[in-house]
Amino acid sequence: MDNLSRLAIHTMTTKPWDLPTAVAKFSAAGVPGVGVWRQWLAGRPLAESRAMLADNGLSAVSLVRGGFFPGLNAAERTAALDDTRRALDEAAAVGAPQVVLVCGARPELSLPENRRQITEGVAACLDHARQTGVKLALEPLHPMYADCRSAINTIGQCNDMIDQLGDTWLGIAADVYHIWWDPQLESEIARAGRRIAAFHACDWLVPTTDLVLDRGMPGDGVIDIGGLRAMVEAAGYQGFTEVELLSRRWWAEEPDHVLATMKASHRC
Amino acid sequence: MDNLSRLAIHTMTTKPWDLPTAVAKFSAAGVPGVGVWRQWLAGRPLAESRAMLADNGLSAVSLVRGGFFPGLNAAERTAALDDTRRALDEAAAVGAPQVVLVCGARPELSLPENRRQITEGVAACLDHARQTGVKLALEPLHPMYADCRSAINTIGQCNDMIDQLGDTWLGIAADVYHIWWDPQLESEIARAGRRIAAFHACDWLVPTTDLVLDRGMPGDGVIDIGGLRAMVEAAGYQGFTEVELLSRRWWAEEPDHVLATMKASHRC
Repeated sequence: MDNLSRLAIHTMTTKPWDLPTAVAKFSAAGVPGVGVWRQWLAGRPLAESRAMLADNGLSAVSLVRGGFFPGLNAAERTAALDDTRRALDEAAAVGAPQVVLVCGARPELSLPENRRQITEGVAACLDHARQTGVKLALEPLHPMYADCRSAINTIGQCNDMIDQLGDTWLGIAADVYHIWWDPQLESEIARAGRRIAAFHACDWLVPTTDLVLDRGMPGDGVIDIGGLRAMVEAAGYQGFTEVELLSRRWWAEEPDHVLATMKASHRC
Repeated sequence: MDNLSRLAIHTMTTKPWDLPTAVAKFSAAGVPGVGVWRQWLAGRPLAESRAMLADNGLSAVSLVRGGFFPGLNAAERTAALDDTRRALDEAAAVGAPQVVLVCGARPELSLPENRRQITEGVAACLDHARQTGVKLALEPLHPMYADCRSAINTIGQCNDMIDQLGDTWLGIAADVYHIWWDPQLESEIARAGRRIAAFHACDWLVPTTDLVLDRGMPGDGVIDIGGLRAMVEAAGYQGFTEVELLSRRWWAEEPDHVLATMKASHRC
């Protein structure tokens, strides 16, 4: 088994565990990184969560998530900006260097309008990113989510947007589940270079029985995770591999077993 | 309601009807085109099916489907070539100008190897296409099918393959369900130009509850079908709009109602 020095786990992966349990368990297992979903911060002061991470020797790799920029009216769009700025504040407070952006999509809007509003929304949050010192990591989502989750679906679109908006406070969260099929993946990751700010791992199961909640444990599906890790490393990425499972199956298992399985399957 | 002169319906759309029933019903409804799935030709001489279409004044727009080129060994790959050549023979026999190719993908193979075998398979069928006078229409499938149905997922990949193999006997079947999300769609359709050989319509439902069998009736989802039709027309396409629904919901309805709904929703 490779060493675990680059392994991070999203709190959503071990969903039944609250933050105190998750950080204690991750720490005891020798897992050094945690992807913090915002729900796990609720109910206690942010400073207390930060201390909890530090006391357990854990790095907050990323805060998940902001975005969802498209809206049907100005009030909705403003609410999304406010929420993303709050996410930046929370990330700064707990010591996470970046907020992952799920850019959003509203079925009522056209695809070009969704994309226009996303670019506008990202641009509107850059100042706050600078003020908080926290990056925004654009996460392209699989094209099967273009209807209602994100109209940003390829690394290429992220590169185009960053070309336009600048890369000081913008990065790209490369999640193998969303991008593995892309025929332009290698060239777009090379083009992204140091923009790659996160590497998320899970697997595509055959068959996949649910569009959202049937992600597989690394190694159980068809994605060449090692090959994709090599691609982002060739582009300059040296950070964590963050295991992020949204899975009814794994959420129903005993989280200690999920954690042990992840450790055993960790390769890169 | 627009006139129906460009409307074609796939036999799979009205699945409960056999070929005699479907052609009689389509004809009576004033629908001039039919996309023939090969299962509908089983059990009678091909000449009889051809006569049945002619007697009802129907054009066979396409035969569905050949392809599935990747295999785990030479015997599997040869079987796929033989089957695709048989499809070309069948298309010629019933008067269909093209065979739609679902290119295939095997989860056991890497994505690059799947793609390599597809290009090799298509190349190996070109002679037979020339001999039968029937085109092969590459259909890019949605990226959510890259694991086990097709590793060809964008119009761009089809253009690249046709650049390599020549466009005399190759075309592209543009199915809105598979391509609507693509950020490069407009430029790749423009690049395709006259290569666009078919235009398939259905809709992406919100939510989509099944990866395969939950396609929507045109108008019931988020796809800008009229906008995509305008795109292929700008590229030079003037052929049929083929309604192809794979849908547990619509298959469970009375096919007369499905047909009436399609006629009423037909816009382009």
